[in-house]
Amino acid sequence: MLIHELTAAQCEEVLDRSSVGRLACARNDQPYVVPVSLYFERSEKVVYGFSALGQKIDWMRGNPKVCVEVDEIHEQLHWTTVVAFGRYEEVGHSAEESEARRRAFELFQQRADWWLPGVGKLTTGEEHATPVIYRVRVATMTGRRATRAERR
Amino acid sequence: MLIHELTAAQCEEVLDRSSVGRLACARNDQPYVVPVSLYFERSEKVVYGFSALGQKIDWMRGNPKVCVEVDEIHEQLHWTTVVAFGRYEEVGHSAEESEARRRAFELFQQRADWWLPGVGKLTTGEEHATPVIYRVRVATMTGRRATRAERR
Repeated sequence: MLIHELTAAQCEEVLDRSSVGRLACARNDQPYVVPVSLYFERSEKVVYGFSALGQKIDWMRGNPKVCVEVDEIHEQLHWTTVVAFGRYEEVGHSAEESEARRRAFELFQQRADWWLPGVGKLTTGEEHATPVIYRVRVATMTGRRATRAERR
Repeated sequence: MLIHELTAAQCEEVLDRSSVGRLACARNDQPYVVPVSLYFERSEKVVYGFSALGQKIDWMRGNPKVCVEVDEIHEQLHWTTVVAFGRYEEVGHSAEESEARRRAFELFQQRADWWLPGVGKLTTGEEHATPVIYRVRVATMTGRRATRAERR
């Protein structure tokens, strides 16, 4: 198995085709990671997501430093992983945010089948019914890909 | 879709059958999450793993608070996720640790096909060649499962 680093463009390609990733946040040096639906807006280097109110949103409001990880694990010797560090921001309801909000919904609708982890909570009625639309502004990104030696 | 909380026993079952998870650590409130091979020792409530030296090990040595997430995403309305908070510890080479080390290797060997992300780096020669054996002592664990309403 050979492992090589991905270029920035390759990292973006992996993010671009990922509909599920893991989002990590932290409070008082305790990390917390959950699976999320995600939507990468390549031109802005922004990951959009949404979530019902709950622990994840509480923590990210308190500390906007987050990490997004996506991967494609095909088999033991053939996998790719991309890790992005960035900053959590909520997409509000102000006039200046209306374009970002429109774009976020457009992305969500392209992958309506993956709305689930974020919206599912709503159906239980256990948490606040208005999902939060957020974005992660990607600051740095690294990626690694493993391939069988003979395939190179 | 209905979402229900898993019992502690159900969380353990999911961890028990997971060979890949995501491990999050944090430094200066910046979380970092990567995919890892993992091996749950149910009787001890410990997750064993191993890794080449690198950013993940550096960060966990600096701050042992970690989070392990595993999931089974079958389809949009049918998924399970378990999140465990715990403490990172290295399994050293002392006499007292020999049994833990033996047990860790036994678990690794049961799933030799999933040694890869942790050991792959070794083949590149870019990092130290002796993998670190570690364990995460699980302190708390929560899980959620989504099912189609009609299946209940």
